[in-house]
Amino acid sequence: MKIKQAIVTPIAFRDPPLLNAAGIHEPYALRSIIEIETDNWHIGLGESYGDAPVLELLQRVAGLLPGMSPFDFNGLRQRSAASVAPGTRAERLEHALAPGTDPRKDVAKLFSAFEVAFLDLQARSLGIPLVELLGGAVRREVPYSAYLFYKYAEHVGRPYAPDRWGEVIDEVQLVNEAKSMIDQYGFDSIKLKAGVFPAQQEAACMKALKRAFPDKPLRIDPNSNWSVQTSVEIGKSLEGVLEYYEDPTPALEGMAEVHRATGMALATNMVVTDFAQFEKNVHLNAAQIILSDHHYWGGLRETQVLARMCETFGLGLSMHSNSHLGISLLAMTHLAASVPRLSYACDTHYPWQEEEILVGGKIPIRNGCVAITDAPGLGVEIDQSALASLHDQYLRCGIRNRNDTIQMRKYHPGWDDRQPRF
Amino acid sequence: MKIKQAIVTPIAFRDPPLLNAAGIHEPYALRSIIEIETDNWHIGLGESYGDAPVLELLQRVAGLLPGMSPFDFNGLRQRSAASVAPGTRAERLEHALAPGTDPRKDVAKLFSAFEVAFLDLQARSLGIPLVELLGGAVRREVPYSAYLFYKYAEHVGRPYAPDRWGEVIDEVQLVNEAKSMIDQYGFDSIKLKAGVFPAQQEAACMKALKRAFPDKPLRIDPNSNWSVQTSVEIGKSLEGVLEYYEDPTPALEGMAEVHRATGMALATNMVVTDFAQFEKNVHLNAAQIILSDHHYWGGLRETQVLARMCETFGLGLSMHSNSHLGISLLAMTHLAASVPRLSYACDTHYPWQEEEILVGGKIPIRNGCVAITDAPGLGVEIDQSALASLHDQYLRCGIRNRNDTIQMRKYHPGWDDRQPRF
Repeated sequence: MKIKQAIVTPIAFRDPPLLNAAGIHEPYALRSIIEIETDNWHIGLGESYGDAPVLELLQRVAGLLPGMSPFDFNGLRQRSAASVAPGTRAERLEHALAPGTDPRKDVAKLFSAFEVAFLDLQARSLGIPLVELLGGAVRREVPYSAYLFYKYAEHVGRPYAPDRWGEVIDEVQLVNEAKSMIDQYGFDSIKLKAGVFPAQQEAACMKALKRAFPDKPLRIDPNSNWSVQTSVEIGKSLEGVLEYYEDPTPALEGMAEVHRATGMALATNMVVTDFAQFEKNVHLNAAQIILSDHHYWGGLRETQVLARMCETFGLGLSMHSNSHLGISLLAMTHLAASVPRLSYACDTHYPWQEEEILVGGKIPIRNGCVAITDAPGLGVEIDQSALASLHDQYLRCGIRNRNDTIQMRKYHPGWDDRQPRF
Repeated sequence: MKIKQAIVTPIAFRDPPLLNAAGIHEPYALRSIIEIETDNWHIGLGESYGDAPVLELLQRVAGLLPGMSPFDFNGLRQRSAASVAPGTRAERLEHALAPGTDPRKDVAKLFSAFEVAFLDLQARSLGIPLVELLGGAVRREVPYSAYLFYKYAEHVGRPYAPDRWGEVIDEVQLVNEAKSMIDQYGFDSIKLKAGVFPAQQEAACMKALKRAFPDKPLRIDPNSNWSVQTSVEIGKSLEGVLEYYEDPTPALEGMAEVHRATGMALATNMVVTDFAQFEKNVHLNAAQIILSDHHYWGGLRETQVLARMCETFGLGLSMHSNSHLGISLLAMTHLAASVPRLSYACDTHYPWQEEEILVGGKIPIRNGCVAITDAPGLGVEIDQSALASLHDQYLRCGIRNRNDTIQMRKYHPGWDDRQPRF
């Protein structure tokens, strides 16, 4: 089985005006869809970041794949590394919300994007679901959490009709958002993307959620937008309210300080985002729960390695997410289904996305879970007309690099971007 | 593809009278050969320990495999764990030369034995070599070291004709053994199994090897038979002579002390033999090089995890061996071919074994390397008549549990087993 061609298609899908520490989501989120075809007519699928610099690199690697075996991960790693010539991308550290925009993770991101498609091909050629290739399912249903956001009612300039969620900037609206999301999807735990409003106000929202959902585990994620002092104060005030405390403050050292002062379990997808940081964290004890993300940890198998390392060093494990569609959701789900010690329900933005490129449309979330099926590979096919339409949307939308800060200034011209803000 | 049956065949093969810290090898070494047949007529092979307690467990797990998919590693892990009921094996800590005899590693050993056969089946059903399933080859030839032993000329009671190596108990004989082994196999580095004679005498042997082979990396392995003080003294006297210093003294704490006192790179297959010890070692800095062994680390994929962990924590990696035949050698070789940062030539006892159960006989070692081929899976088939003959030898030989100490007392009745001896 050899690769005949690999196609990377940039798409844009509608994204609500969700607020976060860096600003606000733009009206369209970008993503790259990967299709790899082999000489024996199998198609393997992948999904990755869609920002212009990553897209360019993805397309460069795609051009190097024809003739390769979709089992040759070491070859893929070499090609991924070779495609990222040192110095070709300036370090863009400002407003780096997530490792998805960190150029130092380019090789891991490139490798991962194609590794998923390679694994999908392997599993399809074997006629087995992806999870079986990853060691077999320890669970058939993977739990996700209700991922709450503060949000505005509509995008500036109203590029399309407002979403059904309305404005969410206070306690009552937030509890309603949670109710609505849980009614629809059955989630059993709740996460709030915070770091938007003054910390005391967000803490009050968590307490309101606790009153409304006394039995559901709660998490808050200020996206490192709080000082150490704020993080400690708010952390203490939320004792007994939180399941875990996610990235309250920047840097391993800051997180370690917050952990020492509060004794609370800190989760992170910001200070432990690669194996080198994992090693530092072992010595600093900054974070006790790693929110993995195969998109930048270097693929599904590397995330399985991470899972074993978390087990070895007594750390908890769950999964981070940013805006994505169904291929990413299924890759996460097959992975999570294979990992014995997945400590917490995973995060996903998926309920915020209305569009999809898969045959059959959106992947169902029932009882807060995504189920794996016995269909080969990831278990889904691309709806080519839906893909064409979202590619068209990409061409028309004009966005090429996500920037939540510049977007926020369209609402609040003087909005400054200092972090931590509170 | 489902498993139809799994057969575990105990075998015994002739083993020379090799000396070590615990005593002397018995005239036959035991091993288990695993054959798993699927409903689509593929055969997957494995090789593991042959001592009675492990054999019994292997046969118990084998009985649980029919109907399983050879991709279902999580299912295999559950069955391996379920087969080792707590308390069924007393802890046998005396003379535990290697983790192969440590009952606390039973689950990892069981899992590994069948995992290799599962992976072999997967690769054979795909028509690809095992290394490709492990991520692809970063090298086509895997280097091994010349594994020197002190030895007697023949076994007590002369159960069969003496081997061709003769007696090796002094410098001149040892250098001759090295020359003969290197002439025949082309090894590019040399390891001495030590801990047999007084430490000064063994150190003098290392210096003699250095004079005879000034360009070849040298290692000494006293099998934790030296006190911390002896280890430090001898270590200092061998500075500049050794590539690394393997397990001079018992326990993580002792090794850490030797490392602090000498600054030398310490290798181990005795104090870091599972992930829990890996974690402890990160904090103690006892060993800087891990000598992995898929037979007790829990399989090929777990050893790949270990390799990534060594990379993450800045540790070197190579491979440990004890008496084995070709299936184990090939499993090691495919694994080593897939691991990007394999820091040192691997160990193997293989040149000491004359018998084999594979079609075509012994696997060639050329220029000190074992080469992988493009044949599917491990790339070898079992010679059923050779297997039957070594099984017969097992039935006849009377050995059921390796015990080098009791064997040594047949030569030296008063031989005591205190460790560390020097």
